[in-house]
Amino acid sequence: MPKILIIYYSKSGNTKAMAQAVAEGVKEENIEAVVKDVKDVNVKEFLDYEGIIIGSPTYYGTLAAQIKKLLDESVCFHGKLNGKVGAAFTSSANIGGGNETTILSILQAMLVHGMIVQGDYSGDHYGAVGISNPDGRAVKQCHRQGKRTAMLIKQLFK
Amino acid sequence: MPKILIIYYSKSGNTKAMAQAVAEGVKEENIEAVVKDVKDVNVKEFLDYEGIIIGSPTYYGTLAAQIKKLLDESVCFHGKLNGKVGAAFTSSANIGGGNETTILSILQAMLVHGMIVQGDYSGDHYGAVGISNPDGRAVKQCHRQGKRTAMLIKQLFK
Amino acid sequence: MPKILIIYYSKSGNTKAMAQAVAEGVKEENIEAVVKDVKDVNVKEFLDYEGIIIGSPTYYGTLAAQIKKLLDESVCFHGKLNGKVGAAFTSSANIGGGNETTILSILQAMLVHGMIVQGDYSGDHYGAVGISNPDGRAVKQCHRQGKRTAMLIKQLFK
Amino acid sequence: MPKILIIYYSKSGNTKAMAQAVAEGVKEENIEAVVKDVKDVNVKEFLDYEGIIIGSPTYYGTLAAQIKKLLDESVCFHGKLNGKVGAAFTSSANIGGGNETTILSILQAMLVHGMIVQGDYSGDHYGAVGISNPDGRAVKQCHRQGKRTAMLIKQLFK
Repeated sequence: MPKILIIYYSKSGNTKAMAQAVAEGVKEENIEAVVKDVKDVNVKEFLDYEGIIIGSPTYYGTLAAQIKKLLDESVCFHGKLNGKVGAAFTSSANIGGGNETTILSILQAMLVHGMIVQGDYSGDHYGAVGISNPDGRAVKQCHRQGKRTAMLIKQLFK
Repeated sequence: MPKILIIYYSKSGNTKAMAQAVAEGVKEENIEAVVKDVKDVNVKEFLDYEGIIIGSPTYYGTLAAQIKKLLDESVCFHGKLNGKVGAAFTSSANIGGGNETTILSILQAMLVHGMIVQGDYSGDHYGAVGISNPDGRAVKQCHRQGKRTAMLIKQLFK
Repeated sequence: MPKILIIYYSKSGNTKAMAQAVAEGVKEENIEAVVKDVKDVNVKEFLDYEGIIIGSPTYYGTLAAQIKKLLDESVCFHGKLNGKVGAAFTSSANIGGGNETTILSILQAMLVHGMIVQGDYSGDHYGAVGISNPDGRAVKQCHRQGKRTAMLIKQLFK
Repeated sequence: MPKILIIYYSKSGNTKAMAQAVAEGVKEENIEAVVKDVKDVNVKEFLDYEGIIIGSPTYYGTLAAQIKKLLDESVCFHGKLNGKVGAAFTSSANIGGGNETTILSILQAMLVHGMIVQGDYSGDHYGAVGISNPDGRAVKQCHRQGKRTAMLIKQLFK
């Protein structure tokens, strides 16, 4: 059975709340979702999952240093993540506040690993964006993103 | 006296309304602002201005083809726009709808021309983002962007 | 049988040569590859293929206006390309010449359509980059990109 | 007298060598250049310089975590870097290896701070790119980037 690791860094709790909404969407597709704070993730765990979803606050237009550190460490498994599914979401202070570029900074790392990513034609195209405390709109986007990522994993791995 | 050309493409009128708000901000700094629909711009006019501000709707995560066509034509003046000031803004259907990447697609063209761009530490960092019909927040961002661009031009050229 | 449409815009012939190398890679996986100049593509054709690969010269850091025009027209099928596979490559004048951002400008449009893209852990991570007349390195990257895109399509659709 | 801080992170020595070439270009314009390893930089120092140039190896398509950590810490001076000049360069393993997106990840942070950046119409448009051990082409680009950044600072601050 394929499963998905959802990693987040969260200082205020906003990104963590989004991670939980993403997990709900994944589970709705009967795929296991494990949610972890980045400080509790060993990069070796990447190998055990078919999908990796990463959430970061928007810090100066890219992923938080804590997330980047984990991704830089993943170089020891370079080539081994090829063909896994990736996705990203972010919590941002403002519209136009660097949120899309933060998501893309994570997706770029996933592409460099040879991973597979999918956009969404509806709503938040690159990944879910929450503005401050995630409102109903953002929670719905997170849920949808979890569900779509799980569906892609089922199509690829079952 | 330095002056600024504000170019927009607008189907619904949203981007045009944003262009006018940007122009108001420019004028507040006593800098001349000329606002033009992209269809009325000859690429030669780029040479006559110290600043070029471009507004585009968010179309598939980058600038509209109509704007891109003008920028592609500007290759005949490659090197001649070096040191001019550039800025960009966009009207988008959604948060997370490709608006930041649209602004960056315009800023990248400006950087390739050797132009100078400035972000904003407050609000919309890369350039003003309007969601649908520009609301008070978006209009204020546009005004602020016009004002800041004019201030940079005064610092550079007066 | 799934098939792939390879679209290019090419003035000098460099991007066209890359498109043909991509097609060779696709065919090696026994997937049909149709190569077309963008001027001969009707946006309706997007519906007939499981995969769409787009090649553009690097023009001011993003896709050529001719390619953008086609993508802007594709809005009439918004939502219908969801789940198809996309990929992009570019021909550029220089290293650091805007080639990666050109590829990403195409991938962003594909993500906005809900399409699926994959990076490559080896070589050109976001898509094949040729510097001027594509050399052996670039041709190899194109071939590899065609092959990998075809393999992903087989995994998804067969 | 305005001065420029050049910060680098370098494991192999390639990015460090590029930093030194950038400094040579700065000095040619009679502007002071201070070159520092990121581990020796206190974020408070940002306040003492009119220009900040940052070099990072290309790690998974964005800046190294060590550089990101410093930029994330700079939030305590948010708003205070407004109007300073920024620039970025990178050392990458490959063409198409994530080098442009690494430079842009640094420039985006600078824009979020309200800083001013300039592209180059010739050569490496967003910032200097070295492929592995920086060759003559890369060294020349670094030198040119230092010189141009110094010239912009003279125009703005003298």
